[in-house]
Amino acid sequence: MASAPASGEDSLIARYFKPIATDPGAFALIDDAAVLQAQGADIVVTTDAIVEGVHFLPDDPPGTVARKALRVNLSDLAAKGAAPAGFVLTLALRHTDEAWLKPFAAALGKDARHYGCPLLGGDTVATPGPLMISVTAFGRVPAGKMVHRSGAKPGDRVLVTGTIGDAALGLAVLKGGKVHAALSDVSARELLIGRYRVPQPRTALAAIVRDHAHAAMDVSDGLAGDLTKLCGVSGVSAVIDLESIPLSNPARDLLSSGIVGIETLIAGGDDYEILCTVAEDRADAFVQAAQRAGVVISSIGMVVAGTLAPKFLDGQGNEIVLKQRSYSHF
Amino acid sequence: MASAPASGEDSLIARYFKPIATDPGAFALIDDAAVLQAQGADIVVTTDAIVEGVHFLPDDPPGTVARKALRVNLSDLAAKGAAPAGFVLTLALRHTDEAWLKPFAAALGKDARHYGCPLLGGDTVATPGPLMISVTAFGRVPAGKMVHRSGAKPGDRVLVTGTIGDAALGLAVLKGGKVHAALSDVSARELLIGRYRVPQPRTALAAIVRDHAHAAMDVSDGLAGDLTKLCGVSGVSAVIDLESIPLSNPARDLLSSGIVGIETLIAGGDDYEILCTVAEDRADAFVQAAQRAGVVISSIGMVVAGTLAPKFLDGQGNEIVLKQRSYSHF
Repeated sequence: MASAPASGEDSLIARYFKPIATDPGAFALIDDAAVLQAQGADIVVTTDAIVEGVHFLPDDPPGTVARKALRVNLSDLAAKGAAPAGFVLTLALRHTDEAWLKPFAAALGKDARHYGCPLLGGDTVATPGPLMISVTAFGRVPAGKMVHRSGAKPGDRVLVTGTIGDAALGLAVLKGGKVHAALSDVSARELLIGRYRVPQPRTALAAIVRDHAHAAMDVSDGLAGDLTKLCGVSGVSAVIDLESIPLSNPARDLLSSGIVGIETLIAGGDDYEILCTVAEDRADAFVQAAQRAGVVISSIGMVVAGTLAPKFLDGQGNEIVLKQRSYSHF
Repeated sequence: MASAPASGEDSLIARYFKPIATDPGAFALIDDAAVLQAQGADIVVTTDAIVEGVHFLPDDPPGTVARKALRVNLSDLAAKGAAPAGFVLTLALRHTDEAWLKPFAAALGKDARHYGCPLLGGDTVATPGPLMISVTAFGRVPAGKMVHRSGAKPGDRVLVTGTIGDAALGLAVLKGGKVHAALSDVSARELLIGRYRVPQPRTALAAIVRDHAHAAMDVSDGLAGDLTKLCGVSGVSAVIDLESIPLSNPARDLLSSGIVGIETLIAGGDDYEILCTVAEDRADAFVQAAQRAGVVISSIGMVVAGTLAPKFLDGQGNEIVLKQRSYSHF
């Protein structure tokens, strides 16, 4: 607009992000704020940031970075039983590199449409440091129906979606070293890298988790540590059968050949699967409903009374003591 | 907890942020998400990040950094006519320095209580780069009543709260140089520095803006540029009387002695005042209601028809052409 020259930030927003801000409450990003209507539901709010060099690598494609930034939040919403409603985005950039921003915004828009989670607003700031993408996502659940971490009960079955440990292996592949060297099969490498770069949020499971689970969370910092947290706030413990933990074929091969230990898989981060506990008499119905929704789910153990950290048993029923349970930023 | 050792991030959250997550919907920060109840209102969502070296300086006190991070968002809510409802926080930290975090969280908690805007959740991530604090804040307005940028009409009065340009001068003082040298009065320096470090969100004006204003936004990137944006999206222009723009005493002294030009004041950032337009026949009632709420408000010009950028006139009615209208991150 010649009459009102836009600043660098404004023209950036207009060019790349306005097209994906399709919700009427986003006001085409020309306002300072958005409106989110609850539609009689509770608004579930979650926020997760991803940082270059930590959650993604400097040479990851911009499209996968965008997808990961949104999807780690969609994963939280799904685990809480919430349907996606929208998100806001904070981008900390070193400079406005159009060759990076264009595919970033395109992929973000594609995911926003696919998951029914429109961009509502955002902020872009300059940083001399690593790129950082912070997303706050909103979902809707019927009033009072958010699924908590804290509802696990002794006797519940412990279940998890998908496969565990692939993302940690994908990161190991990208970093080179022994995992990379051990995988001569390019398709196996690509599967694992894909799991690190582009999580698969279990949005299709949200309503089913809400209907069946006593407690749920998404696995983002390692299955062992996240289960420990869930048990801690529920005031229970658990016994997990390590052989029941679902693994992809490459993960199983790397484990059985001794290239990685089980800790690499269950204390690694970035799985973005749903971990939940379901009353024993509802477990079958839950698994069947998940299957109908196209989500593979595995029973990995039982919730038990007590306050000790969950036990992990090998095929002979012996406890494996874990040196590390989860990824920590500090 | 010996039985379930918390990660560094979890113990950090528990120690410093749990005490300020007082809202029941925050679930004491033990869950992955929070619940925000709309209570029949529209939820207004806004997000603003502050970055070390850009919005605050490395040696700014942690308490003022916390206040600024929250208040720049409260300022947006006020300009939209929304009452604060809560916020989520993303902290990108180089390390967990308790000597920094403790006063940061204490000040944040104090402001959260003061403004009735509780912490609902957050994320902490490690970064080798500058500190960054991203806040997404929520407010409530009666359905359909958010005040937009885009409602200005020819004939409206243009009004602004408080004083303009102090924060830009405060930053100049902190950076040393001619502004610092020209201010021998320590209390004047402190006033300006305080305006840069700790914005005063006009929360008390939210309902009054909602009742009276055709259009409103908060002034964060410079009055001239922000008014240009407001006029642009409203499809109008404006004529501003430069002598009517409210200035603090130190700002007026620096301007009249030629140490700074008017552009430093009206194209500088970080004012966090409310800029709004009000129908001429409601302007007096608006000013009186603002005064009753304890907020000083000044009439600085008129909205006029047209699509040209707003004109700024000096005391003789001559147009001053601005080389720069606003702060841009890129």
